[in-house]
Amino acid sequence: MRVLILGIDGYLGWALAQHLAHRGHEVAGCDNYARRDWVAEVGSQSATPVPRMTERLEAFRQHFGQNLRFHRGTVVDYKFVWNLLRSFRPEAIVHLAEMPSAPYSMIDVDHCVFTHTNNVVGTLNVLYAMHEVCPNAHLVKLGSMGEYGTPNIDIAEGMFEIEYRGRRDRLPFPRQASSWYHQTKVHDSNNISMACRIWGLRSTDVMQGVVYGTRIPAMPEGDDRMLTRFDHDQCFGTAINRFCAQAVTGMALTVYGKGTQQRGFLPLCDSVQCLGIAVEKPPLASEYRVLNQFEEVYSIKDLAEKVRAAATRRGLDVRVAFFENPRAEAASHYYAPDHTKLFELGYVPTRDMDGQIDQMLRDLLPHRGRIAARVHAVAPDIRWDGSRRPSEETS
Amino acid sequence: MRVLILGIDGYLGWALAQHLAHRGHEVAGCDNYARRDWVAEVGSQSATPVPRMTERLEAFRQHFGQNLRFHRGTVVDYKFVWNLLRSFRPEAIVHLAEMPSAPYSMIDVDHCVFTHTNNVVGTLNVLYAMHEVCPNAHLVKLGSMGEYGTPNIDIAEGMFEIEYRGRRDRLPFPRQASSWYHQTKVHDSNNISMACRIWGLRSTDVMQGVVYGTRIPAMPEGDDRMLTRFDHDQCFGTAINRFCAQAVTGMALTVYGKGTQQRGFLPLCDSVQCLGIAVEKPPLASEYRVLNQFEEVYSIKDLAEKVRAAATRRGLDVRVAFFENPRAEAASHYYAPDHTKLFELGYVPTRDMDGQIDQMLRDLLPHRGRIAARVHAVAPDIRWDGSRRPSEETS
Repeated sequence: MRVLILGIDGYLGWALAQHLAHRGHEVAGCDNYARRDWVAEVGSQSATPVPRMTERLEAFRQHFGQNLRFHRGTVVDYKFVWNLLRSFRPEAIVHLAEMPSAPYSMIDVDHCVFTHTNNVVGTLNVLYAMHEVCPNAHLVKLGSMGEYGTPNIDIAEGMFEIEYRGRRDRLPFPRQASSWYHQTKVHDSNNISMACRIWGLRSTDVMQGVVYGTRIPAMPEGDDRMLTRFDHDQCFGTAINRFCAQAVTGMALTVYGKGTQQRGFLPLCDSVQCLGIAVEKPPLASEYRVLNQFEEVYSIKDLAEKVRAAATRRGLDVRVAFFENPRAEAASHYYAPDHTKLFELGYVPTRDMDGQIDQMLRDLLPHRGRIAARVHAVAPDIRWDGSRRPSEETS
Repeated sequence: MRVLILGIDGYLGWALAQHLAHRGHEVAGCDNYARRDWVAEVGSQSATPVPRMTERLEAFRQHFGQNLRFHRGTVVDYKFVWNLLRSFRPEAIVHLAEMPSAPYSMIDVDHCVFTHTNNVVGTLNVLYAMHEVCPNAHLVKLGSMGEYGTPNIDIAEGMFEIEYRGRRDRLPFPRQASSWYHQTKVHDSNNISMACRIWGLRSTDVMQGVVYGTRIPAMPEGDDRMLTRFDHDQCFGTAINRFCAQAVTGMALTVYGKGTQQRGFLPLCDSVQCLGIAVEKPPLASEYRVLNQFEEVYSIKDLAEKVRAAATRRGLDVRVAFFENPRAEAASHYYAPDHTKLFELGYVPTRDMDGQIDQMLRDLLPHRGRIAARVHAVAPDIRWDGSRRPSEETS
């Protein structure tokens, strides 16, 4: 299948390109290297060194025997997107070209507006270009489990059937996002759903949990050019990844609040597996399909304990530290999201979090110097109230 | 009360300024005259001549005895909004500064993206400026009943209490908008709701029905400078207004589809009455209050018949014509939106649609030449599929 990856230079994009090539698909991609710039802007860098794209492409050719067609540009430029679709004629488009950080979007009005423009306008451009150029292609769009928030009822997969005052309907499950970044994902979901309804486009909107890990099976061993990026700063480093980076440098693991917040998680290998399944099993024309993509629900505190235990097994002395939560989010809450559709489509979860964490520690240990050099970018100081003030340790 | 009207040069804005001044409030406003430009862009003009703002302000001073503080600028410019709030220190902000046309937003990707940027970024700027400058002020934001779409259950006012799989929660009522314009209103609602939750702002989000009419009681008789604008083109002319403009020029009344679509409607005098009530009775800090603002539900066909009958009484010979519907919307559907909160707050509906329509015909007859000169802008050719092709008459 011809698959176009928007945002191929990112954490998921570069891994997914390898997974799809390994499965025999023809891969093209675009990026404007924005992720490299954003991470630099917040004072950090990827723990794993990220080679220039020309080197990445050369390594890709050597390992997978195909010339990955790469175009430098941004999805916010409509003509760029249009030309991309026109020249590659993709059968599937995986849209990973959004700004993916909640704290980054909360820095100030400029970052809030930038996140909206980059994410919402980018997706609108993709929808219009598909409508004009390749209306039968399948859009696999990366959303977030964070769109749903933490309601006091079970979370359905996108739509739910309800009875209200004696009448029934199948309606979009209510969204209650808690950051501007997550709001842009909600806006995208609404826009994509409408485009499917009025234009007959087909799309899979992936409500993804928090991804962690350094490896996927398709990634060739022993060639660091094929590693994907790995962020550990307060903006782009998500829970487990940040904990592992902290562990290898002997920093305390920074848990926000009491750590009783619960979220869905999945390893990088499962993320690319699921995205691959979505690509290979497209929905029908006009169908707006929502998949809740995660393996298991954990509390943040439990994850920190898991990383601490894994680090201890490797002889690393690490402690878990609790910081006042810079975010506005519920501390204790009901959390029971459905996740059955991907299993029905064939998802086989790895179910080896301890093994994944140990692999991460092994991959990160050689780069502990790079991580330690950016230690100031890890401590949280971006607050949801709009101020910038370091969180205090509470225990 | 010090009330700032964003978009004071528009259909609602200019009328509301008079209503609020009449009730003793101190009014300030801003506009960038975008509505004048958009209507010109689609080849039309207001049926009632719109004087320059300097003339409007002079007339306002004469009739209401106050100098309305006016600033020319756009809410998409954050510094402009910030300075506006800083200098006027409003107690209430009525945000009417959005692009308000569904067909205009559907013209092409440029108009879709413009509508998103103008509306969503404008509202984000207002939220951030309020948070920084006047966090206790009350934001009255114009949304739309179109945010809800036409679900098969009763439509609650913003939030609804539901039971799902044996658990209960109070959640946002699902939104299913059917144009990019309406989607931007949904995005705004989500963003405003979050700002109230995380920053403690207070806001009333007005899900307004379709407004019609030329007059409000506070409008001085006999001074045309005080009339508000009146659009009748396919983009900015909404159902009843467009029918009345067609009636006075002898054009057929253009009903889309079978005309069985149902919507909530209210006269201009009720719209300003309700907005005034919202201003004078603000919600508590942190409260995100949604009001469904309309008087009564009608089908489009019934409204066309009402206008035809009123025109006949004035000796005008008019027919109702059915055109293929350029929009993607349900033809026959359940429609039962709640609208109790405004009544509880003191809204007394005018309940005189026939009188309002007759007044409109009287106000428009002197301007039939101006309307006839722009007759080409009335017939629908902006289609929801992205093409531009005149709708055929079907009966």
